Amino acid sequence: MTDQPSAPVTGGDPLAELDEFSIELPSWAFGNAGTRFKVFSSPGVPRDPFEKVSDAAQVHRLTGLAPRVSLHIPWDLVPDERGGFDALAAHAREEGVSIGAINSNLFQDDDYRLGSLAHPEERVRDKAIAHHAQCVDVMRATGSRDLKLWLPDGTNYPGQDSLRARQDRLADSLQQVYALLDPGMRLLIEYKLFEPSFYSMDIPDWGTSLTHCLALGDQAVVVLDTGHHAPSTNIEFIVMMLLRAKRLGAFDFNSRFYADDDLMVGAADPFQLFRILHEIVEQDAHLPSSEVSFMLDQCHNIEPKVRGQLRSVLNVEEGLAKALLVDEPALRAAHEAGDVLGANDVLMDAYRTDVRERLADRREARGLPRDPVAAFTASGYLERVSAERVGGTQASWGA
Amino acid sequence: MTDQPSAPVTGGDPLAELDEFSIELPSWAFGNAGTRFKVFSSPGVPRDPFEKVSDAAQVHRLTGLAPRVSLHIPWDLVPDERGGFDALAAHAREEGVSIGAINSNLFQDDDYRLGSLAHPEERVRDKAIAHHAQCVDVMRATGSRDLKLWLPDGTNYPGQDSLRARQDRLADSLQQVYALLDPGMRLLIEYKLFEPSFYSMDIPDWGTSLTHCLALGDQAVVVLDTGHHAPSTNIEFIVMMLLRAKRLGAFDFNSRFYADDDLMVGAADPFQLFRILHEIVEQDAHLPSSEVSFMLDQCHNIEPKVRGQLRSVLNVEEGLAKALLVDEPALRAAHEAGDVLGANDVLMDAYRTDVRERLADRREARGLPRDPVAAFTASGYLERVSAERVGGTQASWGA
Amino acid sequence: MTDQPSAPVTGGDPLAELDEFSIELPSWAFGNAGTRFKVFSSPGVPRDPFEKVSDAAQVHRLTGLAPRVSLHIPWDLVPDERGGFDALAAHAREEGVSIGAINSNLFQDDDYRLGSLAHPEERVRDKAIAHHAQCVDVMRATGSRDLKLWLPDGTNYPGQDSLRARQDRLADSLQQVYALLDPGMRLLIEYKLFEPSFYSMDIPDWGTSLTHCLALGDQAVVVLDTGHHAPSTNIEFIVMMLLRAKRLGAFDFNSRFYADDDLMVGAADPFQLFRILHEIVEQDAHLPSSEVSFMLDQCHNIEPKVRGQLRSVLNVEEGLAKALLVDEPALRAAHEAGDVLGANDVLMDAYRTDVRERLADRREARGLPRDPVAAFTASGYLERVSAERVGGTQASWGA
Amino acid sequence: MTDQPSAPVTGGDPLAELDEFSIELPSWAFGNAGTRFKVFSSPGVPRDPFEKVSDAAQVHRLTGLAPRVSLHIPWDLVPDERGGFDALAAHAREEGVSIGAINSNLFQDDDYRLGSLAHPEERVRDKAIAHHAQCVDVMRATGSRDLKLWLPDGTNYPGQDSLRARQDRLADSLQQVYALLDPGMRLLIEYKLFEPSFYSMDIPDWGTSLTHCLALGDQAVVVLDTGHHAPSTNIEFIVMMLLRAKRLGAFDFNSRFYADDDLMVGAADPFQLFRILHEIVEQDAHLPSSEVSFMLDQCHNIEPKVRGQLRSVLNVEEGLAKALLVDEPALRAAHEAGDVLGANDVLMDAYRTDVRERLADRREARGLPRDPVAAFTASGYLERVSAERVGGTQASWGA
Repeated sequence: MTDQPSAPVTGGDPLAELDEFSIELPSWAFGNAGTRFKVFSSPGVPRDPFEKVSDAAQVHRLTGLAPRVSLHIPWDLVPDERGGFDALAAHAREEGVSIGAINSNLFQDDDYRLGSLAHPEERVRDKAIAHHAQCVDVMRATGSRDLKLWLPDGTNYPGQDSLRARQDRLADSLQQVYALLDPGMRLLIEYKLFEPSFYSMDIPDWGTSLTHCLALGDQAVVVLDTGHHAPSTNIEFIVMMLLRAKRLGAFDFNSRFYADDDLMVGAADPFQLFRILHEIVEQDAHLPSSEVSFMLDQCHNIEPKVRGQLRSVLNVEEGLAKALLVDEPALRAAHEAGDVLGANDVLMDAYRTDVRERLADRREARGLPRDPVAAFTASGYLERVSAERVGGTQASWGA
Repeated sequence: MTDQPSAPVTGGDPLAELDEFSIELPSWAFGNAGTRFKVFSSPGVPRDPFEKVSDAAQVHRLTGLAPRVSLHIPWDLVPDERGGFDALAAHAREEGVSIGAINSNLFQDDDYRLGSLAHPEERVRDKAIAHHAQCVDVMRATGSRDLKLWLPDGTNYPGQDSLRARQDRLADSLQQVYALLDPGMRLLIEYKLFEPSFYSMDIPDWGTSLTHCLALGDQAVVVLDTGHHAPSTNIEFIVMMLLRAKRLGAFDFNSRFYADDDLMVGAADPFQLFRILHEIVEQDAHLPSSEVSFMLDQCHNIEPKVRGQLRSVLNVEEGLAKALLVDEPALRAAHEAGDVLGANDVLMDAYRTDVRERLADRREARGLPRDPVAAFTASGYLERVSAERVGGTQASWGA
Repeated sequence: MTDQPSAPVTGGDPLAELDEFSIELPSWAFGNAGTRFKVFSSPGVPRDPFEKVSDAAQVHRLTGLAPRVSLHIPWDLVPDERGGFDALAAHAREEGVSIGAINSNLFQDDDYRLGSLAHPEERVRDKAIAHHAQCVDVMRATGSRDLKLWLPDGTNYPGQDSLRARQDRLADSLQQVYALLDPGMRLLIEYKLFEPSFYSMDIPDWGTSLTHCLALGDQAVVVLDTGHHAPSTNIEFIVMMLLRAKRLGAFDFNSRFYADDDLMVGAADPFQLFRILHEIVEQDAHLPSSEVSFMLDQCHNIEPKVRGQLRSVLNVEEGLAKALLVDEPALRAAHEAGDVLGANDVLMDAYRTDVRERLADRREARGLPRDPVAAFTASGYLERVSAERVGGTQASWGA
Repeated sequence: MTDQPSAPVTGGDPLAELDEFSIELPSWAFGNAGTRFKVFSSPGVPRDPFEKVSDAAQVHRLTGLAPRVSLHIPWDLVPDERGGFDALAAHAREEGVSIGAINSNLFQDDDYRLGSLAHPEERVRDKAIAHHAQCVDVMRATGSRDLKLWLPDGTNYPGQDSLRARQDRLADSLQQVYALLDPGMRLLIEYKLFEPSFYSMDIPDWGTSLTHCLALGDQAVVVLDTGHHAPSTNIEFIVMMLLRAKRLGAFDFNSRFYADDDLMVGAADPFQLFRILHEIVEQDAHLPSSEVSFMLDQCHNIEPKVRGQLRSVLNVEEGLAKALLVDEPALRAAHEAGDVLGANDVLMDAYRTDVRERLADRREARGLPRDPVAAFTASGYLERVSAERVGGTQASWGA
């Protein structure tokens, strides 16, 4: 990304910049997920990483927007008898996608009851650090650039542990994880306000995430999950600040009405999504040169999973298209004039515009279906895999 | 409960009213529970309702405060070969406790994916209504007075269903459930802001719960769960309003920093608990004549379960003791004088008072241990049941 | 309003129902307002109710949507030497508008430091009740149907006053206010979560407002101010519930990111506004037969006031137009099929539609400017009144 | 402050460390303040900085805890004919107190309608920077160390201004302000979530404040106002992080139930205050060597002002006393054992302890009244100044 605001593409189609934009899908979104009360299962849900990648590839095939799939370790480990990650990477290539970020899983081992990288016991911290070494191996095997770390550590009760001691232990563990990276690899550090811990999280906000990144070095960048903030937080402000600090590494997109609801991105507050993407465009962060990775992180419980991912990808595309349509010279003129309502009107003009036909035209021109959701339904894919994927265990929240 | 404020017990010990106060424990609190990310298991966790009742009885034995255990159907169904509910009720009597409210479980059947009593399909609504008939049978078998209904129904996406149609169907289903009650039985209707649904809940607030109770009749009353409100909600105000309307049936006590965290009551905001209990005392609702049932509803994931329940019961007792110590004549005098800070000081004087020794004295006088937590640890109970309860399946969130 | 869902206008333009829709403007929105830190003044701000009515009439002249102006007593009292309310009503008629609701002001008298209708002292309560008698006189003089009551009463500190005693006094005062109404008049009772009181409000939520309305009688209905809820509250659910109870009397429209920010309606979350208006349309409450009054209640501090009201009126019209475009048969079909994403898509299709040209066409057909904001700017009205309204004291928050 | 946790004072009174602890009072707390709806006035309210200092000195005289008074420029400017700041500093000395931080006022000039240090126009930014030069002059005249900057800048509407451009201009202005400091002076930079701006604030959170401090240099530190966070924010975690980064410069203490309610510190959530002070003690930040300044920042509208400050000072003392009583070795042992409930119990034991008698004993030993509030009431001070301070204009929110 550059320090200069993006120059308007003179005489060109502002939507042309969509050509270079892509979204990364998480493998686990195609498995079963849900709430603490119930995880509902669905016919056709994948039973292994290969089937997850196939489902993800459908989304890319129909939209041209989602060429990468991120994995979650150990959920997506590939046993040697199935060919290991070489086989998975080859399968992805065949399906027309590639492997994206590698996520380390730090919340499902009994040892992690009181934490992982910030755990009071060195033995457990070492185990968590070693798990990242395994993840880096997967990165090398799959050609992945990004090691993504969401730290579920925290405490449930005041006094349960020393907040300061946990932070010092965390900083030490992160140094060790960082040292595992090859040149060119990045460590993406996510923050979250609460859940699964309910008194304190060890990385609850962007300030904490950034503090650790600054201490680690240039390869450490922040992940912003749109569902991980307190009510009323101005998320696009944080986007702007992290871009300004050159430390916004990635998004986990989803949406929420209450807490970390993990609904489809753009479903709860499409205007917020537009505002976020407007800040992205303001700093040219939608272009590949920014190295900002746009990922989905959603939990489909009652809705069909592939279709939920399709809709989400299209929501991001739509929001970005509108952001690209903002009349930047008019906006800047209103800013200079101190015209409060005029400036707001310029922004809202873009938001109010219905871009669906233009996006359908663009798809058609690229050999993609005008309506990817309808095309997916018509394809019979879901019926086919529902018939094929019988027996075995569906991938789920806990597997 | 009466319309008159409680008269100060002239010359007497204000804490004497604690003698009549009791708390109901939920059977499921002794099983494993947790978050959507992980349910940690613990040694000694009960495998059936009998063992749950035994654990609950420990809490009563050590505190004298918790003589009832509420059940959850179907989790606590007793098969005929184990003697059915007659056997469970007898077991409870032997352990010195009795069976309290019967909770209907409306969230773990695959049919309930889109709701239960408010489901679009009549077939599913009928099934949910029939489940309450089963619960009423359990009430008759166990001598329970209260049918407790927490409705997890709702929607995740705007437009997913008609909010109005859901409400009309719900009202109809509730009429049918209400018709199942014997005279003297009560229907307790709980409300919750969100989770497991993330756009709308069909009973999200006390206004909705009360609206349904008023439509149903005098046997329908509201359950207030202290974790089921939006941030910043003044819960004690709602307590006051429901008591004023003579429709506060029960509490589900727990505490929260963020959402429905289900931590131990009094752990997150002991001053809020005190304020709630002050409103209770103001309207004599701590006395049995009020028929308000004080229940715990907590989710112990990382903390030991029996000890967590012990601490919670003691927290409620401590808060109530402080509320009973409020100098009511001084408070009223300050109110009449419009003395803002003086009135606040009177309330805070009671809150600031350390009542632990007085409560220990009261326990000792009743043949109970001064320190129930220490007595429990010293008893070796947990070690004993951990050794005994080997094999079988531990009761858990989903079982 | 009716119990039946609105029948689709077969073959007709769904937007035709906009013809019967109107919005009421508050007189005070044209005066200076702001935050506790600063009220900024602007050239041309009205100095009396006549000038406020003239400004409000501009909005109606340009949009055809805002034929009524509500007054605030005592801010808008008209001295006899200026002809009293007869003169003001005549002035309004000349300007093409009429007088709407009469708002009682209960927060600016030194006597109201500890409350008004719920004040501990009978003398103060009597004063507040008498103020409503004065407001009813204004209603008779101006032909107003609605007495609008926002109660700022509450407490700042726990214990400051008895929550229950305040509620009992409030109920008594409301009975006396209600008794003042002529047949056909309505008492609109607003609720608010917090501010100006910071511990408890005496009418904090819709449950409390509805409880009082039910106790008073059919002429008492609830006012829903979109800025008066806790974060994350599902406001459209409350709209649905109040319509179902036949007790939704009016809206105070505005928008918010944090608290009661009082920004222009539709500015912070246009999708929420659409969802609210969808519930309105679902129960035919946009039609005059519903008797729901749609009012603005906003606080323009840094933005130009007439233009701010124009934009707000247009935002409501736009949201309602989109709600009228929802394909109700398709929506119902998706509901019956349990098609979560399909139903959401139907709703979102309407929301995504750009209705601005259709609304401009409608305006043109009715002899109104296609772009009311541009027409207002071009009219030179603001420059003219800025030159004319020199001397005197601008109407302000406190006057 | 040191990097090591505080060593327990072997064999000594843990409360002895209170001897070195002090709280700074804001001059404006003794004037009238309130909400946007009404500022109530009170008899005896000061009319100038001299009278404010006298009132503040009463609090120190009775508690021994509040030896400094912070000023607010231009509210507390002293005209030459009254002797300028030399006279005010001398008056403070006579009253037994000294001048603390100097606050710059950036919200009451008409030029600041769209911001001050981040304003789009260079002319306005220069004016705001020059205002800080004036403040630094006052610091030199009064011997003050701290320049305290709360930035009210922000926007009300999305698109109103460029978030990024505002941030860049702000960074530039802050550099110029920082350059004004003498060696040994500090720039305290406060953050606030919202109000007076309702879409974006230019310094909304600790991450932004810290980012600017790191860019400026070692003399720039963060101010944490306890009322300036989103609901559910874990404030003590931020305290810990800022101490760890050696950038916690000061507190603005107050308390809140909803937004920036500015109630007396400890009134809304005394347990939160205790947790904050526990983190302070954990890192020895209550000792003067930490250079953390503990200030009050409250808005007394309906409560008496001097008494409100007295109660607040005593609340902080009480919370700190309890934090000093935490059995640190037992706490650390529980941490090492992973004893969740045991560790929580250790913390709660200290919180539950009633320290009022011990604090009264300490006061008596130091020649102070056991009950400062009662002593203040008995002193007749308020009646005396109410009789004396007649005529002139009471200091108020806006003056």
